[in-house]
Order: sequence, then C-alpha cells, then structure tokens
Amino acid sequence: MSAEGVSEVAGASDRFLRACRREPVDLTPVWFMRQAGRYLPEYRAARADRDVLQMSRIPEMAVEITLQPVRRLGVDAAILYSDIMVPLAATGVEVRMAPGLGPVIDEPIRAPSDLSRLRPLDPDSDIPFVLEAVRMLRRDLTVPLIGFAGGPYTLASYLVEGRPARDHPRTRALMHGDPAVWEGLLDRLAGTVLALLRAQVAAGAQAVQLFDSWVGDLDPGDYERFVLPWVSRIFEELAPLGVPRIHFGVGTGELLALMRAAGADVVGVDWRVPLDRAWDRVGRDAAVQGNLDPAVCLAPWDAVERKALEVLRRADGRPGHVFNLGHGVFPQTPPETLERLVDLVHSRTAR
Amino acid sequence: MSAEGVSEVAGASDRFLRACRREPVDLTPVWFMRQAGRYLPEYRAARADRDVLQMSRIPEMAVEITLQPVRRLGVDAAILYSDIMVPLAATGVEVRMAPGLGPVIDEPIRAPSDLSRLRPLDPDSDIPFVLEAVRMLRRDLTVPLIGFAGGPYTLASYLVEGRPARDHPRTRALMHGDPAVWEGLLDRLAGTVLALLRAQVAAGAQAVQLFDSWVGDLDPGDYERFVLPWVSRIFEELAPLGVPRIHFGVGTGELLALMRAAGADVVGVDWRVPLDRAWDRVGRDAAVQGNLDPAVCLAPWDAVERKALEVLRRADGRPGHVFNLGHGVFPQTPPETLERLVDLVHSRTAR
Repeated sequence: MSAEGVSEVAGASDRFLRACRREPVDLTPVWFMRQAGRYLPEYRAARADRDVLQMSRIPEMAVEITLQPVRRLGVDAAILYSDIMVPLAATGVEVRMAPGLGPVIDEPIRAPSDLSRLRPLDPDSDIPFVLEAVRMLRRDLTVPLIGFAGGPYTLASYLVEGRPARDHPRTRALMHGDPAVWEGLLDRLAGTVLALLRAQVAAGAQAVQLFDSWVGDLDPGDYERFVLPWVSRIFEELAPLGVPRIHFGVGTGELLALMRAAGADVVGVDWRVPLDRAWDRVGRDAAVQGNLDPAVCLAPWDAVERKALEVLRRADGRPGHVFNLGHGVFPQTPPETLERLVDLVHSRTAR
Repeated sequence: MSAEGVSEVAGASDRFLRACRREPVDLTPVWFMRQAGRYLPEYRAARADRDVLQMSRIPEMAVEITLQPVRRLGVDAAILYSDIMVPLAATGVEVRMAPGLGPVIDEPIRAPSDLSRLRPLDPDSDIPFVLEAVRMLRRDLTVPLIGFAGGPYTLASYLVEGRPARDHPRTRALMHGDPAVWEGLLDRLAGTVLALLRAQVAAGAQAVQLFDSWVGDLDPGDYERFVLPWVSRIFEELAPLGVPRIHFGVGTGELLALMRAAGADVVGVDWRVPLDRAWDRVGRDAAVQGNLDPAVCLAPWDAVERKALEVLRRADGRPGHVFNLGHGVFPQTPPETLERLVDLVHSRTAR
C-alpha cells in the first residue's frame, strides 16, 4: 500500500466518492475492474474448484475475495465480488458456468413465451447472501464499496445467445425482428437490475456500477431506441439514493454521449478512445473512469508506466477522474504490476 | 439476380471498380464480406468435411466457391475464396483449423528466436494453387475479382496468441514489452502480405482488400506507432499496380482517419459508426465500404430493409460508396435475405 493515502482534503476513505462527484481530491483514486479475481493467488486458493455463482452464495467468501485486492494493492474502492448472472440464477434462470467459456443458458430466451421464465427479483428472499456480504463488508472496509449489476443489453445478450458469443448476432436479430419481445425482456431485466442495485445500496453500497459490457455492439441509433430508455429508467430511479452511478461498456466510442445522457454520473471508458477525446464526448459536467489498456499490464513495467502516464496526462488533473483499466484485469496479470500502478497513480497525482 | 445491372454509364462489370475510384456509377455496387461461406447450402455441400486451408489448396474448389455467391446473389464483385492464414501455413507455420474455434498455432511466436520460423513467401512455389484459382476465375467471371490478405496486426495476433482470443492481450503485451520483436514480426508479415497481394494482382485480381480485422484493439497512438508504418509500406508498394486498395477492420471508429492516411483508397467501416460520421472521419476524398450490421440479416426482411435504407440514406448518393456489411456474413443468414438485399440496394440507387 502507498503511504500517500492520508490527507486533510480527501483521504483514502473518500477520494473515490469525491472524484465521482467531481470534487477536489488529494490524489487521483484508483481501482481496477475485476480486481477481485483470478490473477491473485489468494483468490485461486480461496476459490478452489468452486465457480463464481457458488462463491457468491457464501457471504464470508464474497467478503474475503472482495477484501483481497484492497489489502494487497491499496486501491481506493472495493467492488463487491459477485457476478452479473447472480440475480438471474436466483430467479429461476438455469445458468451454469462453463469452464473457460462463461455463463451458459441451455434454454435461451427468444420467444414471447420464454419471458414468463423471468420472474421479478425479491432481493431479501432471492439473494440474502449478497446483501449479507455487503453489510459485512461495510463493517470491515475503510474504502468505499461499489455495488454492481449487469446492464440490460448485456444480460439480454447472455439470455438470448445462450452462451458467450462474439458480437451477439441473435440478440440484435431479436431486437430488430421482434421489438415487442425485446421490450418485454428489457422491462423485466431493468426491474431486476433496479431491485438489485437498490438493495445493495440499502445494505450499504456507496456507489453502483452498471456493467453494460457488450453494449458497444450497437450503433448509436439502435442504442438510443433499444437500450437507453431502460438504462435511463434505472438511473432515474436510483437518483434519490444519492450514490454515484457509474456506467461502463466496451467499445463504446460512438455511445459515450448517450451513456452520459442516460443519467450516469461517471462514464467508464475503454482503452480504445484516448481519455481526453472520450471526456469531450461525455461532457465535462460528468466524471470519467478509465482507461489503461489491461493488456499493457502483461508487459514489463516501463511499458505500463509509459501508458499509465499517458492516461494521467490526458486526464490533465481535472476533477472527476477515477483511474481504472479500460476493461477487466486479465488473469495472467502479475499482481506486482497492479501494486506498482496504484503507487504510480497516487504519487504522480498528489496535489 | 436483378435486371438493373446493365447500363451505359457503368454496368455490373465495372461499377464496383468505378465506385472504388469515386467515379459515377449506374447504381451502388454491393458485395458481402464472407459471401463465399457457410450460410450457403451449396458451399456446405462442396466443402463437406474439409477445412478452409484444405479447400484453398484445390483451385477448382476455390473457383467454385468463389463463384457461388456471384451466381446466386448477383453481387457486383467476387472475392477469392481463401483464408488469411494460407500464406503463413504455406511458409512453414504449423496452423490447424480447430472446428468452431478457428486457426490454432500450437507453437506461438513470442520470442526473438521464433522469428526465424517465418520465412519469406515465394508465391509461385508456395501458393501456386492461389494464383491458379485467380487465373481461372478471371476467365469465368463477369464481375471484378477482389484479392485479399490479412493485415499485419491481425496475422500477428493469431501468431502471438496461438488461438483466437478476445481482445488479444498477449499481442499487445508483446508489442509494448518487446518492440524489437514486434517490429521484426511486422517486417516479416508485411513482406508476406505484399508478396501475396502483388502475386494475386499479377495473376488477375482487380482490387485488393487488407483485412486487418482485429486492429480495432488498438488506441490511435499505438496504431500509429506499431501498425501504420507497415500498412503504409504495403499500400505504397501496391500503388504502382493501379488497383483499388481496400482497408477494413472491426471496431475502428477511432482509427478511420489513420487507416485512410495509411494509403487506402477505400476504407471499410464496421456497423458501429454511422456511415456519414465514418465518411467524415475518413475524408471525402476516399471511398467507403459498408456498413449494415450483419446481425440484422438474421432478422425478418422488414428490419433488414429499414436498416439497409438507413445506410443508403447516410451514403446520400455520393460517389464512392460500396455497399457491404459491417463485418462478415453470419453462418445462420438466410441466403434469400442477401438476394433481396442486393436487389434492394440496386433498385433504390439506380441513377
């Protein structure tokens, strides 16, 4: 852990939340998507041969794994260890995690009659283990806790394709070919997402991130028509809770302004768009999160440093930057690289 | 086939080449990436249980499969049936096509000593079957024949990863971590690509497309430093041959201007960027190719028609538009949809 985390202006305990609100901070906060994950030997040891759905159901395990990167890396926020498929699996969708592949749904959702298989989420009875983990974490953590959910397009893509697929063609075919089923599907998913995020906040989550990871599949017109209304509804209904709302997707260069318009306080940016260019599209009245290419973290340190400093240079010390990767940590990443990266960002941004 | 293909200005025999050169055409030319492929029952019948590398080595087979979509769909250009891995397999790289996965290289290229496994391509002795197929096709075809090669980044990604991988992290780790190996690798690949494309043109190909499909992995700075110099070299050396040079990649919204700057006459655009916005980035002094979302072709016809007309509206009848999909035809695509799509584009753009 770095020693710079204590300050009068904003210390490790709140610099992440302050940056989300574009308030002054003592130094730029850092966390990493998938920071609780396979690149950590202590994660692999704890998980053994269980999959993420099994792990998520054991609050003590979710807590331990959520804490691991906070302890080791000194990041400025924790993100709940869970999976975007947890609320679907908890409401009757048969999901299995196929090793090396990801979530598989043997009976995909494609017809009007399939929609009835998606029942509303009742967090207290369906996912008490998630809420218990959040409550336990708030007792242990000295940095803010981020709750999260999958975005409606991304959840739909898993349900419609039935398995991870490049570019998700059946999802967009359904969207264009049967808008009524699509809208019914997104209505249900938005309800589930909203119930999940509200419950996480009620249990103590201090920020939420909507991972609409695959929404970059869409052109702007389709995003605006087929996804944005549901994301707007989710963010609008979260607004009274007063926690920062982060919105992230991969390959969203053309969608950044719309993602902000949907109501995000913080827009997560992947590595393909230089951060200053991305911020121009998002608008300077919002915060941004990102955007070091996670593949760079597999290279020797001097390359990591060079590219990380480029991100900081493009952020230009403006209020409202949360340093992160442009997508999740790759499993082959050396933990030491992320430790050094936290220290680098902290030391180079100390005000 | 549609009947509109004959005209005094530019008929089916040359409207594709004229559009590439931004000359007036009788109607907007159409072809589809992967038009010779698995969505066609006659392709599946011809191929039986052979893989694409085996098929490519039989000129009669390559010719038949190249001709199939021209006969059935009435497209305005043929693209040689082959695979981007063919020249590598022909120069000693051990490539196998894993069913449902793609090219696998059991001994990836990652160290300086691996570079010696990439010997230069001698088209006449290494790939005579490709050149024979091109010559045979020129005798049979009444529309122009497009030759092609994989782009240097994309070929490198297969060689470095060893197997198809989302986002190709090891490729960019090598690029950043060992620039000397990267440059040696791209030198060799650019040499192979250039030899292949020159030989295809000498044998009769009337245009060439460089499929740098995965180059959208890169941010603009990395593209400019680690890829553009080699693409520029390829395009520069092809310039004296006088054939249109098409450059395509997926997810290249941030790279379009650079891809044009690298020397392409025609920039292929994926479906994520609205075509008018893409053309602004490419520059109006170049032609563009694209960009209907191929997933839309899995939907009922009215959705296909709506989205195709949107592409035409964004092209706005300007000279220099080649209609295509934004990526390859999905195997589940009904051939009838593509037949109707050719007719739609032709009938709605007749001058």
